Amino acid sequence: MLQTKNMSCEVERICEFIREQVGNAIADGVVIGISGGIDSALVAKLCVKALAKDKVHGLIMPYQDQSTKDSELVIKSARIPNRYVNMINIEEPVYSVIKLLPFDSDSDVLIDINNDFVIPGNVRARMRMIMLYAYANKYNLLVAGTGNCSEHMVGYFTKYGDGGTDFEPISHLYKTEVWAMAKYLKLPKKIINKTPSAELWDGQTDEKELGITYKELDRILDYIDEENIYKSIAGDLKISQSKVSKVLMLISKSAHKREVPPGLRRYNY
Amino acid sequence: MLQTKNMSCEVERICEFIREQVGNAIADGVVIGISGGIDSALVAKLCVKALAKDKVHGLIMPYQDQSTKDSELVIKSARIPNRYVNMINIEEPVYSVIKLLPFDSDSDVLIDINNDFVIPGNVRARMRMIMLYAYANKYNLLVAGTGNCSEHMVGYFTKYGDGGTDFEPISHLYKTEVWAMAKYLKLPKKIINKTPSAELWDGQTDEKELGITYKELDRILDYIDEENIYKSIAGDLKISQSKVSKVLMLISKSAHKREVPPGLRRYNY
Repeated sequence: MLQTKNMSCEVERICEFIREQVGNAIADGVVIGISGGIDSALVAKLCVKALAKDKVHGLIMPYQDQSTKDSELVIKSARIPNRYVNMINIEEPVYSVIKLLPFDSDSDVLIDINNDFVIPGNVRARMRMIMLYAYANKYNLLVAGTGNCSEHMVGYFTKYGDGGTDFEPISHLYKTEVWAMAKYLKLPKKIINKTPSAELWDGQTDEKELGITYKELDRILDYIDEENIYKSIAGDLKISQSKVSKVLMLISKSAHKREVPPGLRRYNY
Repeated sequence: MLQTKNMSCEVERICEFIREQVGNAIADGVVIGISGGIDSALVAKLCVKALAKDKVHGLIMPYQDQSTKDSELVIKSARIPNRYVNMINIEEPVYSVIKLLPFDSDSDVLIDINNDFVIPGNVRARMRMIMLYAYANKYNLLVAGTGNCSEHMVGYFTKYGDGGTDFEPISHLYKTEVWAMAKYLKLPKKIINKTPSAELWDGQTDEKELGITYKELDRILDYIDEENIYKSIAGDLKISQSKVSKVLMLISKSAHKREVPPGLRRYNY
């Protein structure tokens, strides 16, 4: 896990990466979807640090009557200029899609947690991707992703939704490391202390849905990364076997989300 | 280039790949966006061949008053059962997105060919991706891509739009090979002989927009693939240097579309 003594090095390494990505693409900056959560808050802070304020744009994209107060706090604390901030409520296009689907299209009915399909949640995530890319196209920007390593490894994101980005500045940092870096960079306490939630339904929290706390999850992921073995994890970490097994299953089931769509190599006749 | 004598082997190799992808994902089949063009027609034919009819679903997704006649012909010739075919006109959600964009939002004005940004075209391609994934989620299907190798190599597709799929059955076949295989599999002549067009605006054709015919493009791509050298292409193939240079530029500029969004490796302190 990332130590406090290495924090400033790591911040610099990420800033260098951001500059490199923008430079290589000959882009005029980045655009970030600002949700009010800690991940996009950290990415916004890092991008401003790396590129200067006038290269960082923010899109706030609430659904229905979602509050945008925390997003505005993030924008202010990252010092993104107001003229680079836009608000788009995605309710109408999302509803328009849901309505057209050729099956039972009541948006509540579609929330089918047991089957792991959260169709309206996926539609919302992908609609935000569409907005970010239209905006990025218009102003020659890159879409900066806000996924962290914990989500990335267990596939807790929408393929081609929040996973649809041009580069990922913090996808190598576990959620617990995101919290540590956010503290180090003095992000607003209110944002740091918020319960992580994808806000898919009222009262939803990531940890309840995943069935494990981020602290436990990150210890398992770190163990796998360091030891590169999958045996005796539960015993060594004193985390229940059922939680460990679930995490291993999630990692394997979500491998397709971390790869380019597979195709064939050219024939060899 | 693919020879006629190897055609049946190649068809079998692709069918094996399709079965493998669906099997590995423990999916109940595939869904394909049927545009009426040759690529999705060939993919539909191959999927039915590989999986049997009751595992292949088709979505026809016209924009505005686009004709769906050719799509229906494709469905019929591939023998996809009618109950597995759905039609969704994407005009409303696309318009709803365009309207919300925080800049000049007249859809004609947004077509800015010189800048290589065709924002409404990208929105349409991504909207179709959203529909395909919602449908695939509902029925536990994989989204089969329909991109060919010529498009793939020069980046003539929308990132996270038509490029947003679960697997790509023909992304290793050049467009000229797609035509040859379509003839071999006796696809409708009307579909085979159609002028290739992404239908982004009236009268648009791929070859006009790319500034090169598929025949020339494929010869260049094949030369690069075979020889793995970039010098003297123009002379050897008797294709103008300006066309060769343009193709090389497109390959290099679109590399990001063929890769997972880059992130950092974990630190090593």
